[in-house]
Amino acid sequence: MGGLMRRPTIMDIAKAAGVSKGAVSYALNGRPGVSQETRKRILAIARDLGWAPSSTARALSPGGRVGAFGLIIDRPARDLGVEPFFMQLISGIEAELAVGGTDLLLQVTEDRDAEIEAYRRWFAERRVDGVIMVDLRVEDPRVALVEELPLPAVVLGGPKGAGTLPCLYTDDASSVREVVHYLAALGHRRVVRVAGPEDFMHTRDRTRAFEEAAAEVGLPGAVTVHADYTGEAGTRMTRRLLASAERPTALVYDNDIMAVAGLGVAHEMGVDVPGQLSIVAWDDSTLCRLVRPSLTAVARDVVACGREAVRMLSRAVEGRAVGARETDRGELQPRGSTGPLGG
Amino acid sequence: MGGLMRRPTIMDIAKAAGVSKGAVSYALNGRPGVSQETRKRILAIARDLGWAPSSTARALSPGGRVGAFGLIIDRPARDLGVEPFFMQLISGIEAELAVGGTDLLLQVTEDRDAEIEAYRRWFAERRVDGVIMVDLRVEDPRVALVEELPLPAVVLGGPKGAGTLPCLYTDDASSVREVVHYLAALGHRRVVRVAGPEDFMHTRDRTRAFEEAAAEVGLPGAVTVHADYTGEAGTRMTRRLLASAERPTALVYDNDIMAVAGLGVAHEMGVDVPGQLSIVAWDDSTLCRLVRPSLTAVARDVVACGREAVRMLSRAVEGRAVGARETDRGELQPRGSTGPLGG
Repeated sequence: MGGLMRRPTIMDIAKAAGVSKGAVSYALNGRPGVSQETRKRILAIARDLGWAPSSTARALSPGGRVGAFGLIIDRPARDLGVEPFFMQLISGIEAELAVGGTDLLLQVTEDRDAEIEAYRRWFAERRVDGVIMVDLRVEDPRVALVEELPLPAVVLGGPKGAGTLPCLYTDDASSVREVVHYLAALGHRRVVRVAGPEDFMHTRDRTRAFEEAAAEVGLPGAVTVHADYTGEAGTRMTRRLLASAERPTALVYDNDIMAVAGLGVAHEMGVDVPGQLSIVAWDDSTLCRLVRPSLTAVARDVVACGREAVRMLSRAVEGRAVGARETDRGELQPRGSTGPLGG
Repeated sequence: MGGLMRRPTIMDIAKAAGVSKGAVSYALNGRPGVSQETRKRILAIARDLGWAPSSTARALSPGGRVGAFGLIIDRPARDLGVEPFFMQLISGIEAELAVGGTDLLLQVTEDRDAEIEAYRRWFAERRVDGVIMVDLRVEDPRVALVEELPLPAVVLGGPKGAGTLPCLYTDDASSVREVVHYLAALGHRRVVRVAGPEDFMHTRDRTRAFEEAAAEVGLPGAVTVHADYTGEAGTRMTRRLLASAERPTALVYDNDIMAVAGLGVAHEMGVDVPGQLSIVAWDDSTLCRLVRPSLTAVARDVVACGREAVRMLSRAVEGRAVGARETDRGELQPRGSTGPLGG
């Protein structure tokens, strides 16, 4: 520690290896034009001289960027496999990052402490220039952490609960309202919403909007029950609801996996969809169009959200002011799983 | 370029900022214990002095690791959203990486040239210590590239076609054989397999095994048709097959999305599953259990594959010899979508 270090130039390496500058450049950049033997020799010499690859050199310069954004998903690994939302989000993020040659660092953590620890480590080791935060929770400790570090960040969600951080949010309330009014117009009176975990901000926002819309159209029986977005939970919850004395005539699910699971339970219990039960999914993915009947869904362009989050984070990393931004609203896509009661 | 640069110590930063070494450490590591104002001042001074965070410093040392593995998925963004395989693979990779504190760099590219370019850049900028390669193709140019760079790599697939690279492969042939014998035993005579793209190595391996097994049990009508793993392609292909004069009585799909799509088409065309049509999916995910009837599937532990690939790559990065390794075989999980013909 504290010793002197001279950063070698391409010329230093060329001299030591007895080759041209061009050959060094080919070898260091992984291009054809030198034999594999020469490449190995040049690389060994470059390492011995302490040659710094460009990203490392860039990170050493004051205010330099490392050229990577981070994303941490705190969901059980097994559930992620069938949850289209995150792969679509990642696809959008990747599509936009490709434009600027920035990399994505991805972590899937199994608890919130591990997520907090990962942000600290990324900051301490200067692994990323900024992070995209998903699944905003009520009184989310991550917000205070990245504000304090400080680590540039964009929150997917908010604006309530996102602190001073830039955020990209969707007006779920108006989509919820549209769904409730639509189901009421079809004649449904017993509408139950199968929501995600209660401590997610967007779950709370949707619940409030659901209750308000139900009051508007006079549906006293409209209630929200909570599950965890997995197919298993969707299955269990739907079975319980369809077995109850006051069986609902319409079910609204907070994601598409639970809706597909719900449709499966309806088939299993001989409940006709949509004759005896209407089903609405959230976050329309191909899945909703593959099952029969195809599922009516609130469609959002999740890929576009990923792209926009990257653009916002790029501006934040440059030190520019980035505020709260609203995405396009979710659009109700009516398909075969909804219809008039008894129709 | 070529100037002198002295790497500052924690003490240098503490002196310049007029604070204790402890305070500098808290600030640099993103820990509580200093005010936000002091933290910002310390960080500014550290950057001015050219302080190198630990990962950067590590990468500068001869033979040093950067602490990241890379994964590139060359599939259209939209399709990835509903393909459980990759999120399960990533989950396994992440679970194992978490053990060693290594990060995952993920790229989703939309063509093969972009993928090749990304490997070159990762190598040139020393972004990763090694890569995990998926979707091995016939005469795959990536194999020669990473061998030549050289970039430590583990191929998921092979061993044929993986060159000298370590690889983790599954004996698909025996699973294909099990499926064909099972369907033949149920009385099926017209069995069609809806496979993935023809230029994937594992597609070819499965096709050969399918033809051999069909010959063994005397199914002259067994043929393979190709689709691209998407639900849309699965839908189109199934519709065409079920509309043909010699309608198949059993369909074997190379992934679960196409199988779910196929089940949807059967419902739509009034073809009873399994009474008139048996369906077998590949890569059992929750999805196969959510639809009705639930899908018979060849189940592989994809999460475990991800974990093992990381362990193998870790050894390869350390310069240890890592050969070809076989995963557990896929197990046929019979469910409601298969049955005796006319049963």
